[in-house]
Parts: sequence; structure tokens; C-alpha cells
Amino acid sequence: MDEVFPELTEDVIARMKNGEPRLREVVTLLVRHLHAFAREASLTQDEWRAGIDFLTRTGQKCSESRQEFILLSDILGVSMLVDAIANQAGHGVTESTVLGPFYAGPQRELNKGDTILLREENGAPLVMKGRIANESGVSIVGAKVEVWQTAINQLYDVQDHDQPRGHLRATFRTDERGEYEFKTVLPVSYPIPSDGPAGQLLQRLGRHPFRPAHVHFMISAPKYRTLVTHLFLAGDKYLESDAVFGVKPSLIVRPERNNHVHMVKYDFGLAWG
Amino acid sequence: MDEVFPELTEDVIARMKNGEPRLREVVTLLVRHLHAFAREASLTQDEWRAGIDFLTRTGQKCSESRQEFILLSDILGVSMLVDAIANQAGHGVTESTVLGPFYAGPQRELNKGDTILLREENGAPLVMKGRIANESGVSIVGAKVEVWQTAINQLYDVQDHDQPRGHLRATFRTDERGEYEFKTVLPVSYPIPSDGPAGQLLQRLGRHPFRPAHVHFMISAPKYRTLVTHLFLAGDKYLESDAVFGVKPSLIVRPERNNHVHMVKYDFGLAWG
Repeated sequence: MDEVFPELTEDVIARMKNGEPRLREVVTLLVRHLHAFAREASLTQDEWRAGIDFLTRTGQKCSESRQEFILLSDILGVSMLVDAIANQAGHGVTESTVLGPFYAGPQRELNKGDTILLREENGAPLVMKGRIANESGVSIVGAKVEVWQTAINQLYDVQDHDQPRGHLRATFRTDERGEYEFKTVLPVSYPIPSDGPAGQLLQRLGRHPFRPAHVHFMISAPKYRTLVTHLFLAGDKYLESDAVFGVKPSLIVRPERNNHVHMVKYDFGLAWG
Repeated sequence: MDEVFPELTEDVIARMKNGEPRLREVVTLLVRHLHAFAREASLTQDEWRAGIDFLTRTGQKCSESRQEFILLSDILGVSMLVDAIANQAGHGVTESTVLGPFYAGPQRELNKGDTILLREENGAPLVMKGRIANESGVSIVGAKVEVWQTAINQLYDVQDHDQPRGHLRATFRTDERGEYEFKTVLPVSYPIPSDGPAGQLLQRLGRHPFRPAHVHFMISAPKYRTLVTHLFLAGDKYLESDAVFGVKPSLIVRPERNNHVHMVKYDFGLAWG
């Protein structure tokens, strides 16, 4: 089939000749791919209207505590791709994954070995510990280690008015040997918010909304590239089908068990900034 | 450069295998093009965040009287492309163009020759007339001819509380010879709404927000494909740079002048439905 209306695409691109250089470069590629998508899909006018309506509802679902466009980006693999473009991990550098929408800004600082719980949880006790080093394996003293995870009810504190704000999230500093350690409970798998357009799309695509159990880490230190990642639990049934495609094999850990306490020992490597 | 993370794209596509067939087909093409766009642009995480913010603001600008995602689609040429995919005009069929966001649903019916003004306008009087025929040139009796345009102040009635609702829009029926005729004023060029994200994007791309002067037509009759189009005025300074790429040469008319009254005679051809 002949390409429909090829001169339109060239006209749209030519029209930007006086635009900001990088914006023009990005929008040129966007227009080429959007137009190619519409042509290859032979998009109908009804489908176009459904798309306009979907995007409108996605924007209107966003609020201070909900970012539906990030969810949409996550479930289409765009967030993980943008992460991969920015953070190509070399030797000695821990792999990154998505930040997700539940990082809530600066967290209270605790001392090495403290618990991140602000109330009891009906879950298995877990100790997480290890060392932060640079690409050459040299310990980083005073690195900032931010961690967050859901409660056993599958919700983050910011999603759940019944949890004390700051429950299951905290900031630590590595000690003089570059080591961190904190107490928590074994994380559980949970569904991403599925009552909006992104959730409806998942359902119509025959996909489930679950993420495998994980603890979020954001690790930073002056002169190093900030590492945003998770640690996942081996054996989780959603490891192969994470709704946001965030799992990488190097980030899966298998806790050791000592009586009723689980322990994960994991060393992280930061790249030079 | 090696393609970044190619297996991610395949994983996202494979995950839809149980989805609704047409949705799966469309989203597969969307994911391929979105991912290719991000890779080719080497999209940074800051740019991704700016994109999420842009889409969010676009959704939140939408209201009952404003559709910012349609404006965005219009200024990127997507609306005209979807129109072209659906409406390939053959011999004897008038070319189509975008509906635009200012069609306001069913309009009052007037008699052949009536004016569509509900108040005085400080503009040049214009008579528009002609014949509606099918692809074989046979007149269509009783075809519905809906027309709308802005006032001389560059606003449609639905954008301007000072205009009587229904001003400069009406519905006519062709007579026993397939002919229509109505009175109005010469249309003027006008800017699309530029106080939202779409307008900000235009500005940063070095583009103006103007559309050349035009009158909208939607022409329908049982058994025929509905024709959505405009007639543009020859000589308008924005004909070559319509902000929404809606101009086609076959839709440009040059009014004849008889004393102080302008006249446009234009025959439309409808395709079989």
C-alpha cells in the first residue's frame, strides 16, 4: 500500500525550523513515529477518538497522590527503557530499575541497625545489610541509603490513611566500613493501582497488575551517579511477569533464615558521577 | 550504537498475548514506535519527566468546553493524518479536513437563502451557494448541510459568552435541485486557544497559532459517507502555515464581488457510504 499523505509528515517537521534545538529534535522523532504508528495501524477515526478520551481520562486521574501517566509509562515498558538508556551498568555497578510513583521525598534518618517499622506488621522479620562500594570496590563511607516498601496489606504509607506516615521508609548512612543495615519485614507482592485508565488497559490486554515482592533502594553519595533500584525476593510468582517490567536477574536475592529471622546480605556498586 | 535493551520491547509485546485482538494489534505498534522514539532520541530521565508533566497538564486543561488533547493532535498533524487514512477522496468526491473542536452538536435548521447571523457583525456580507452531488454527479436532494464559523472577533459562539448561542452556525437542506444557499459574513483568520500546553509547545517550536479564514461544512445524506470539510479564502496569509495543517488546494475559494456583497459558489461531491 502506498503511504498515506507522506507530505503531511514532512510539512509538520519543516514547520519547526525556528524551534528550540533539542525540543525540535525530540518532537521531530515523535512526529515521525506517531505518524508511522497511525499509518501502520490504519487507525480509524473512532479509534483516534477513543485514544483522545483515554489520554484525557489519564490526565484527569492524576492528583497529588496519584500519577496515572507514570503508571501508563511503567506498564508499557517506557519507564524501564528510559532508565536503561540513562544507566548502563558497567563492571562493579549495580543494575538500576524504575523509581516508581511511591518515593515520597526526604525520609527520616535512622541509625545503622534500626527498624523502619513505625507499627507492628504481621510479617516475617527481615534484616537487610551489606556494603556500598565504588566501581573499583572501594567502600563509600557516609553514602545515603534510602529504602521504602509496602506494608503486609500491599499498600505504601502514602496510599493508606491507616498507616503512620513514614512507616516502612527511612534513610540510613553507611558507616566507616561503608556498611548499611536495617530491620524490616519480608516484602509482599502487590497490585499497582488498577482503578484508572492504566488498570483498565491492563485488563483489556489480558495482563495482571501485580509486582513481585521487593524493597526499593535509592543510594547516593557525592561524586557518584545516584543508584535507583530494588531488591526482589527469589521464588515470587510474579518475577517473570512484573506489571512494570522492573525485574533484572542480578537484583533477585534469596534470604537466609536463622530461626524466625530472615537475612539478606547485598552489596551495591555505584558508578562515578 | 547497539540498540538499548531490545528484549524489553519484545517482552512488553509478548505479555499481551491474551488481549483483545484489535487492541493488541494497535498497542503492539504503539509500543514498537514509542520505544523506537525513546531510543532514537536518547531520551533522558529529565526529558521523560517533562513529558509526563506535559501530558498531565494537557489532560487537566480539558473541560466541557475545551479539548486540549485534540488541539495537541491537531498541531502535530495527527488529526489530519487520521482523516486522510479514513477519507481517501476519489474522482467526484470533495476532499475532507479536520472537524476541529468547535462543532457543537445539532444546530437550528434554516431555510435556503437565510442568514446564519443572530446579531450584526462588522464584516463583509457573503453569500455561499452551490450543489451537492454524488460521485456520478447526480444531485442529492434533502442532503443535510451543517455550517459554522467564528465571528469577526475571532471566536466561535461556544468560546464567547457575549455571542448569542447558535450565532454563525446553522443546518440547511438541499432543495429539489440538490442546491444549498445561505448568507453570512466573510470569515477571518484566528488563533487556536494558546493559553494551554499545546499553545506553549507551539511557541517553543517557533510556530504561530493561527488558522487561515474558513467556513466549516459537514454534509450528510443517507447512504453517503459524511463529508467533514472547510472552505478557505484565497489570499489569506496563513494558507501556507495553518496551525493544524488543514488546508488542501481544492478547498480554497476566491469570492466574486458584486457591489458590497461577496459570493462563493462551490459544489460538493459525496462518496457512497
